[in-house]
Amino acid sequence: MAESTRRRPTTPGALTDAEYHALARFRFALRVFLRFSKDAARGAGVTPDQHQLLLAIRGSDSGPPTVSDLAESLQIRHHSAVELIDRAVDADLLARTTDPDDARLRRLVLTSRGADILEGLSAVHRDELRRFHNDLDPILTELGG
Amino acid sequence: MAESTRRRPTTPGALTDAEYHALARFRFALRVFLRFSKDAARGAGVTPDQHQLLLAIRGSDSGPPTVSDLAESLQIRHHSAVELIDRAVDADLLARTTDPDDARLRRLVLTSRGADILEGLSAVHRDELRRFHNDLDPILTELGG
Repeated sequence: MAESTRRRPTTPGALTDAEYHALARFRFALRVFLRFSKDAARGAGVTPDQHQLLLAIRGSDSGPPTVSDLAESLQIRHHSAVELIDRAVDADLLARTTDPDDARLRRLVLTSRGADILEGLSAVHRDELRRFHNDLDPILTELGG
Repeated sequence: MAESTRRRPTTPGALTDAEYHALARFRFALRVFLRFSKDAARGAGVTPDQHQLLLAIRGSDSGPPTVSDLAESLQIRHHSAVELIDRAVDADLLARTTDPDDARLRRLVLTSRGADILEGLSAVHRDELRRFHNDLDPILTELGG
């Protein structure tokens, strides 16, 4: 064990070995979760980005979202959201509807095919997140969260 | 609000609106955290992958890791780990050492430059993770975690 990488911190604000371990274990758990999620999406016949798009629409807490709402939810640029939505409409995963109060505004809703795929993916993600939460809690507690 | 996307689930195993919201909020919080992390790495002069490599080495709980250990930690292929490590050695972020018990085995340790960069990044990540944990806990509790 190299002394220089294992010693206790001696400068203010420096991290303990336990904190470095906790940060590394957190990122490992996150990578395992994200790999699970991507594999699950592909196994259900959609891309990981399409899965996140379906979830952002169904999980919106203010009704069917606009393209701008989705760009914000997905933390992507507007033109990237437009392209992602166009491909998902072509794949019969979602459809555009007109806002009842503003005919210029389009809102996105899931098709029954999109809703069915999302339901299956969400059920397995709920289970996986319960495991992730159990792994995460002692790690984040170590970091004082 | 489209009735078809908001109704209570009627089939066994189906998810509630609250569960879809929770899943969507979890992924949003995760995207915000990952964006923070990538921006922080670039701001410190390393790539996000180099940051994860430094953390995996320093946060190893069994001493300086081998290339194979790091490929497993980072969930990447062996040849990708070799390339990532080569570039990080060239950038004076880490160095190869010979295992004291097996001269054929190389182990990776941080240089003082790598350790300094990781310390700064780890301090801001510890703070961000405390916020992430506070956001996450009610969400994961909603999912029964």
